Amino acid sequence: MAKLQLALDFADLKEALAVAEKAAPYCDWIEAGTPLIKSEGLRSVSELKKRFPGKVVVADMKTMDTGAFEAGLAANAGADVTTVCGAADMETIKGAIEEGRKRGVAVAVDLINVAPSKWKGIDALGPDYICIHVGIDQQARGMDPLMLLKKLKVKSKKIVAGGINAQSAPGAVKAGADVVIVGGAITKAKNPAQAAKEIKEAMEKV
Amino acid sequence: MAKLQLALDFADLKEALAVAEKAAPYCDWIEAGTPLIKSEGLRSVSELKKRFPGKVVVADMKTMDTGAFEAGLAANAGADVTTVCGAADMETIKGAIEEGRKRGVAVAVDLINVAPSKWKGIDALGPDYICIHVGIDQQARGMDPLMLLKKLKVKSKKIVAGGINAQSAPGAVKAGADVVIVGGAITKAKNPAQAAKEIKEAMEKV
Repeated sequence: MAKLQLALDFADLKEALAVAEKAAPYCDWIEAGTPLIKSEGLRSVSELKKRFPGKVVVADMKTMDTGAFEAGLAANAGADVTTVCGAADMETIKGAIEEGRKRGVAVAVDLINVAPSKWKGIDALGPDYICIHVGIDQQARGMDPLMLLKKLKVKSKKIVAGGINAQSAPGAVKAGADVVIVGGAITKAKNPAQAAKEIKEAMEKV
Repeated sequence: MAKLQLALDFADLKEALAVAEKAAPYCDWIEAGTPLIKSEGLRSVSELKKRFPGKVVVADMKTMDTGAFEAGLAANAGADVTTVCGAADMETIKGAIEEGRKRGVAVAVDLINVAPSKWKGIDALGPDYICIHVGIDQQARGMDPLMLLKKLKVKSKKIVAGGINAQSAPGAVKAGADVVIVGGAITKAKNPAQAAKEIKEAMEKV
């Protein structure tokens, strides 16, 4: 069964927690988004883990250097999963994966803006997850994460992110996603609980 | 005259501030490093600006998505300069530059792990600075930022970073750097003030 990951891309921790409280019952993984981590620090991750001990908490670190060091910081904060950019040097990705393994933190490599020719090499490093990710700035010009997901042939488990909603989430599951990340379709909904419930149910029907 | 930028790549704000207090008299720019921002949040930038109002304060955001949004967060925190990754989508880089211009924050594009074939296109977007950056994980295998700096032919002002110390800083100035970033050679020195002084003096002699 594919997991639903709630991405909390807020600048304010209180706002993020308020939405998380509502949507959490329908989500499996809860993510402190990159802007949230930068704004409020890794205490945002610790706070999520404290409030939602039964959920998988993701620190979307988007690490670009000092892979081992930043994976360690995420581990210290109580993250279950940390992310490193596929656009980073291979040594950085390797460092994150090795540190994650030592510390019991899963590592997801975020393929935002990474050419498909590099995907195999990244997979060979053995990350727990590889994440197809069409960024918010890329969604604005119509890039489609499901098209990319269908091209992703890797051994690692698959995550997909990029403007996914109740309409597109079932397609993500059909295309092989182990984890489907949803941000705005839940966090910007008038009723985040209802929005999360609808997406989760749509995924379960696949 | 080339500027000396102190990079505070700490996980702990108090430690970072303690070193900054010592080294600041000899530094022109003071940077909240990426791990510091992720650990402690953007209050690390606000705190640096409060303590060092006469210095240029850099938020090393290493933005990979939502370029405008993250540049705005850095502006809100009081940063004079914010960074965006050259490895990000061009729209992300553009968004950061445009928002920076609106908010009076200079934008530096960090070329960590970006192929030289992409440098011209990034320069054409008109960022205030372009930063040649050999990451800590890359320094470990002997990559040399000055070799790359000599290849950088751009209109933007130039910053260079990557294991630079008192021995190599004059070479960075000779190779055309407008800003020379030094981290470990100051922050890990027994006497950070003395280390910063020596580097600044070595740069001034060029």
